[in-house]
Amino acid sequence: MTTATTDLDAKGKAARAAARKLARLSSSVKDQALFNIADALKTQEEKILAANAKDIQAGKDRGLSEALLDRLMLNASRLESMAEDVRSVAALPDPIGETFEQRIMPNGLQVGRRRVPLGVIGAIYESRPNVTVDISVLCLKSGNAVILRGGSEAIHSNTVLARVVRDSIAGAGVPQDAVQFIDSPDRALVERMLSMKEYIDLMIPRGGADLIRYVGENARMPVITGGIGVCHTYVDKDANVENAVAIAYNAKVQRPTVCNALDTLLVHSEIAPRYLPAIAQEWTKAGVEMHCDSRALSILGPSEAFNLKPATEDDWGMEFLSLTAAVKVVDSLDEALEHIERYGSGHSEAIITENYSKAMRFLDDVDAAAVFVNASTRFTDGSQFGLGAEVAISTNKMHARGPMGLRELTSYKWTVLGNGQVRS
Amino acid sequence: MTTATTDLDAKGKAARAAARKLARLSSSVKDQALFNIADALKTQEEKILAANAKDIQAGKDRGLSEALLDRLMLNASRLESMAEDVRSVAALPDPIGETFEQRIMPNGLQVGRRRVPLGVIGAIYESRPNVTVDISVLCLKSGNAVILRGGSEAIHSNTVLARVVRDSIAGAGVPQDAVQFIDSPDRALVERMLSMKEYIDLMIPRGGADLIRYVGENARMPVITGGIGVCHTYVDKDANVENAVAIAYNAKVQRPTVCNALDTLLVHSEIAPRYLPAIAQEWTKAGVEMHCDSRALSILGPSEAFNLKPATEDDWGMEFLSLTAAVKVVDSLDEALEHIERYGSGHSEAIITENYSKAMRFLDDVDAAAVFVNASTRFTDGSQFGLGAEVAISTNKMHARGPMGLRELTSYKWTVLGNGQVRS
Repeated sequence: MTTATTDLDAKGKAARAAARKLARLSSSVKDQALFNIADALKTQEEKILAANAKDIQAGKDRGLSEALLDRLMLNASRLESMAEDVRSVAALPDPIGETFEQRIMPNGLQVGRRRVPLGVIGAIYESRPNVTVDISVLCLKSGNAVILRGGSEAIHSNTVLARVVRDSIAGAGVPQDAVQFIDSPDRALVERMLSMKEYIDLMIPRGGADLIRYVGENARMPVITGGIGVCHTYVDKDANVENAVAIAYNAKVQRPTVCNALDTLLVHSEIAPRYLPAIAQEWTKAGVEMHCDSRALSILGPSEAFNLKPATEDDWGMEFLSLTAAVKVVDSLDEALEHIERYGSGHSEAIITENYSKAMRFLDDVDAAAVFVNASTRFTDGSQFGLGAEVAISTNKMHARGPMGLRELTSYKWTVLGNGQVRS
Repeated sequence: MTTATTDLDAKGKAARAAARKLARLSSSVKDQALFNIADALKTQEEKILAANAKDIQAGKDRGLSEALLDRLMLNASRLESMAEDVRSVAALPDPIGETFEQRIMPNGLQVGRRRVPLGVIGAIYESRPNVTVDISVLCLKSGNAVILRGGSEAIHSNTVLARVVRDSIAGAGVPQDAVQFIDSPDRALVERMLSMKEYIDLMIPRGGADLIRYVGENARMPVITGGIGVCHTYVDKDANVENAVAIAYNAKVQRPTVCNALDTLLVHSEIAPRYLPAIAQEWTKAGVEMHCDSRALSILGPSEAFNLKPATEDDWGMEFLSLTAAVKVVDSLDEALEHIERYGSGHSEAIITENYSKAMRFLDDVDAAAVFVNASTRFTDGSQFGLGAEVAISTNKMHARGPMGLRELTSYKWTVLGNGQVRS
């Protein structure tokens, strides 16, 4: 083993030991740790921004795009908003210790399930330095230790933020070792981290599709794979056109770079002549490029008014993450369902219809983390679904599916209280 | 690919397609399928027993032990009891379709989670042919397709039982392909099966520790690892001695070959002089051999009355699966907790005490699937915990922990009903 991997093993061991202590801490101690972090983001502002300036300068020297530099950049107001987020997490109920399905069995045994932390979470993430604080705080609140591996572009910012977090929690009586930060850019460490099954119970990758796929394919421990959304909105022939325009507009335009944004619009052939020009007009104002199948093209084009291209096979099942949408005309709900089954990624799918039976059938038949009737797929989100915080959006079926809150970072143990019972 | 692996891939594909249909079937269709299976175990008795006779003959020729031959053996009364088990599963509530945490958000969106099947379960199991029916029935009831790989000793019995299951469910309108049976003894198929991530959502190994470890280490999909229990019972100085004798006796003797049986008895030094002779007397009558640390030995021996041996380091953390127990005297609850943390397998752990604070501390601090106060660890079981059926006992923390019932074979999807909502 190299020095770096030996060091990583030591971090794993330390995180495991800290997790055992963390699991037993009261909510008030954990919340105090979070308040300390929020305060320190203000008191340590100068140090944090100085480190961030180094990353920004290095990024400029390496020719990072304006968009990436913006993701990387911290300032006083961004730090304040990070601190606010930390205080919001502190205000959420503690998931640990909640007991559920407690019952008394016929033999008098009191059997229940009590929520406990998972143990140690591994996080691998890209560029945005706020993730260092965000993930640490979600893990601490849910009683989990965490091992953080950020992107090399943000190495100076992340190193200082991790130190701020560790110092802050120590001040509240939470073991520093509950938050481990990998400060070496050595790529081999990612490989080693993915094999550390004995120290890491769950891996959360945050970043682009390539990172998530790499972690999913190579990790020896469970991984939350998610964040990849090929999302369809199907406008049924019985749709309310006004709703259907507003929803598809919102789903594509409100924040096109995220996983729950619309990728493919499916439109029933009977409503397409009325609907397609209406959505095309709104989308065009927002700068949306439409990759249309031949039937959609023949309704909309050739027109200088819209930004149209013929769709290719690659457009179906494409996650655009930009102001581009694939558009296809279908002849039935069945055809829409088949298309979604074939090309969807099991993230978020919507039907727009006033027809009750079709709405119910869509809900029943579509196999995705979130299935919508008459609403924008953009709602797939922890806080929009009432979870308070969002750890990740899972497209796995095991453990947790869709938006994951604090509770989804927990396990449970069965507690059994008896007075001498034996099994016969 | 060999013909056999191509055939296995075809089974995977067929199971996946059947799973999609199965997910939409009503409870009554699934239950009818189960009743048909129960009936067929009677009507097809002759065929089943003839196939079983071949396995028994082959087992005798290969020199299988009496115990293994007994596990392998079917007869009319065993088939009747299998049929009864199938009818009990049919009588359980259907977990699929249950909606939970449904709420109306401030913007009027109705957000809830609806239980759906996981998809396709893979099962790899040893010798007992009843597992073929048992696992099929649990998967069908929970809306999952299943790919079965039984042990080569039971190949004739399993082949006929799988055919009986497939024919029975087809008669109820459930796709035959929902149950796939691998009828080739080719070992390479297990390897291929463990790599079939695209067709198998969850792998359940049932059998010895070696099988479970092999599947856990090699499967590319999630695995329920469990069934390995190194279980401690700690007799505190404030224990009720009578309870403590009855519980340790039950935990060791009632069924020594299972994972929730007692392996190590930890006894507080202040109660050991009274307690150890009492339990030793009862255990000795039942034929229990005690592997004692030096302090336990000095209390109990040298004595011809008991079956004593000095414990070696290997005895701690050993799953005996027989009438053997390791015995150790400790000086405090802390020492007991440390021993359990070091040597336990996270399955089932018990404290016997009348002291409230120590009972609570044991519940809080022990990290295991099931933690008991004043009761036998033998209760760790799906039906004893009120789950109706038991699919497996998981020592994982992800997804499900401890006894798993039908609900633990499900996932959920978020359903969102709107009337035109868009995200701002």
